[in-house]
Amino acid sequence: MLVIHKIQEISAYSKGTKQAGLTVAFVPTMGYLHAGHIQLIREARKRANRIIVSIFVNPLQFNDSEDLKNYPRNPERDLGLLREEDVDAVFMPEVRQIYTDEKPGTIISNPGLANKLCGISRPGHFEGVLFIVHNLFQWVQPDFAFFGLKDYQQQLMIRKMVNDLAMPVEIFSIPTIREEDGLAMSSRNARLNNSERSRSTLIFQSMMLVQNAIHENKNLTNSDAFLILHNSLHAGLSAEDRIDYFGIYDPQTLELAAADKPALGNLIAIALYIGKVRLIDNLLLV
Amino acid sequence: MLVIHKIQEISAYSKGTKQAGLTVAFVPTMGYLHAGHIQLIREARKRANRIIVSIFVNPLQFNDSEDLKNYPRNPERDLGLLREEDVDAVFMPEVRQIYTDEKPGTIISNPGLANKLCGISRPGHFEGVLFIVHNLFQWVQPDFAFFGLKDYQQQLMIRKMVNDLAMPVEIFSIPTIREEDGLAMSSRNARLNNSERSRSTLIFQSMMLVQNAIHENKNLTNSDAFLILHNSLHAGLSAEDRIDYFGIYDPQTLELAAADKPALGNLIAIALYIGKVRLIDNLLLV
Repeated sequence: MLVIHKIQEISAYSKGTKQAGLTVAFVPTMGYLHAGHIQLIREARKRANRIIVSIFVNPLQFNDSEDLKNYPRNPERDLGLLREEDVDAVFMPEVRQIYTDEKPGTIISNPGLANKLCGISRPGHFEGVLFIVHNLFQWVQPDFAFFGLKDYQQQLMIRKMVNDLAMPVEIFSIPTIREEDGLAMSSRNARLNNSERSRSTLIFQSMMLVQNAIHENKNLTNSDAFLILHNSLHAGLSAEDRIDYFGIYDPQTLELAAADKPALGNLIAIALYIGKVRLIDNLLLV
Repeated sequence: MLVIHKIQEISAYSKGTKQAGLTVAFVPTMGYLHAGHIQLIREARKRANRIIVSIFVNPLQFNDSEDLKNYPRNPERDLGLLREEDVDAVFMPEVRQIYTDEKPGTIISNPGLANKLCGISRPGHFEGVLFIVHNLFQWVQPDFAFFGLKDYQQQLMIRKMVNDLAMPVEIFSIPTIREEDGLAMSSRNARLNNSERSRSTLIFQSMMLVQNAIHENKNLTNSDAFLILHNSLHAGLSAEDRIDYFGIYDPQTLELAAADKPALGNLIAIALYIGKVRLIDNLLLV
C-alpha cells in the first residue's frame, strides 16, 4: 500500500493508473476509521480496479476550533486497517500543503441547501466541505467517489456540486453502518462516556418508531411523524443533552415537509448533543 | 475549422488532441469578435499547438436582462474571422445544454473581490463568470487559457479561482487592444452613436493624464492621481453620461489605494455610462 503525502504524487499515481486502462475509486475521510468507512472501501472495491483513500482533517470545515482540536486522530491504526482492506494508495497531505495562513478567497457554496439542517448551526461548514472535496477530486481525478448516507446533507450537496460544476466523477452514497443497538457509526462516538453512549441509542429508536408507524399506516402525515419523533426524543434525553434540530424533510430540497402530506418518501434528520458530543443521523422513510 | 455545439464533442476533441501529445490553448469569448479577441488568439497561437475558441453569451453573468437582450451577436461574421485566424475548433453550445430553467444551486464566488469595482453595481455578475469559466475549463481541459486585461477584475478573479480550486490550466492576461484614439476595444462600442463615440475617448485620455503626471513625478500620490482623474472625467462628460466608479486601487486586493502613498504600481479603474452604454477601462501605473 502506497502512503502518499504530496499532491503531485497522488495525481501522478492516479494518472498512471488511468493511463494503464484501470479505474480509480476514491474514499475521502477524516481518519479515525470505523466500520462505516470500511463499508465505503468495500463498496469501492466492487466498482474499481484501484482504491485511493484520503485521510485529512480539513480545518476549513470546522466552524468551531475546539471541535477541530478534539477531533479524534489515530493515523497508525488507520493505516493498519487500510492495509487489511487491501487499499492501493492512501493520500495524507499536510495542512500546509493545502492551505496558507489565509482562507482561500474563492468559495464554493450552495446557499439553498447550506441554509438547512446542519448548515444553520455550523456556518461555513459546507463551504469547507465542498472546497476540499472539489480540490481532492481535482488532484485525485477519480472515476468514482464514495460517501456515507449518515452525512446525508453532505452527500446531497456534493452530488449537486459534481453535477453543477461538470466534474467527471460518479458519486455513490452508501447506507449507514450501525452498532448492534442502532447507533450510527461515527468517529465522534469515541468521545461518549458510558451513560451518554447508552442515551445515544434514543436517536435510532425514535426514527424506528416513525418508520414502524408508517408500516402500519402508509398515509401517516408528516405532522404525525414529527409528533412521534418529538415525544420520543424529549422523553429520552437528559438535562445535559441539547437538541440542535429534528424533523421530517423533503429529501431533495431539505425543506420541512408539508404537515398534512404523507411522510412516506421523506427524510427524518436529527442532530443533537449527547452531553458535549454532537451526533447526527437520518432515515429515508420507506 | 471544426464548429462544435455539443459538450461531449469538444471534450473528446480536446482529449484526443492532448493524447496525441499536442497542447491546447483556449480563448473563451461571448462573440461579436473584435481586434482584442484576435489578439488573444494570436497570443494563444504562440503557446499551443491547437486553439479552441468558445462563443457563448452566458446569461448567468448578466444581472440586467436588457443588457443580455441587447448584447450584440453576429456568429456568421465571428466564424469568418476565426477561420482567417486558423483557429482549430470553435465551441458554440446552446444555452439549454448548459443551464436548465433553474439557476444552478452551486455557486463559485469570491466575496472579497466581487464586492469591489464592477461587482458593486453588477451583483451576481462575477459568480456567473466564475461558474461558466470553471465549467468551460472542465469541458475543454485546456493547458492554457487567455483573457484580456481590459476586464482586469475578471482575469484577477479567474486567476484566483484557478489557484484556489487547483485547476490544471495556466492563465495568460493579455494587454488591452485600443482604437487609434485610445478607446479600449469592446463589443459594446458598437452601440455608441457618433457623439457618444467621440466622448468615449475621454476615458483613455484621463488615464494618460495620470500616467504622464507620474512620468514627471514618480512620487505622485494616489490622492493627487485621483484628483487628476476626477477633474478630467467631470470636465469631459455630458449630462447624459453617468459615472459608475473610478479610482486608484491596489492591483491585487482591488481596495482603494491609500491617499498619501505613491500611485506608482497601482491600478486606475474606471466604469461609466456614455449615454446608455457601459464602458470600462483600466491602466496599471508604471
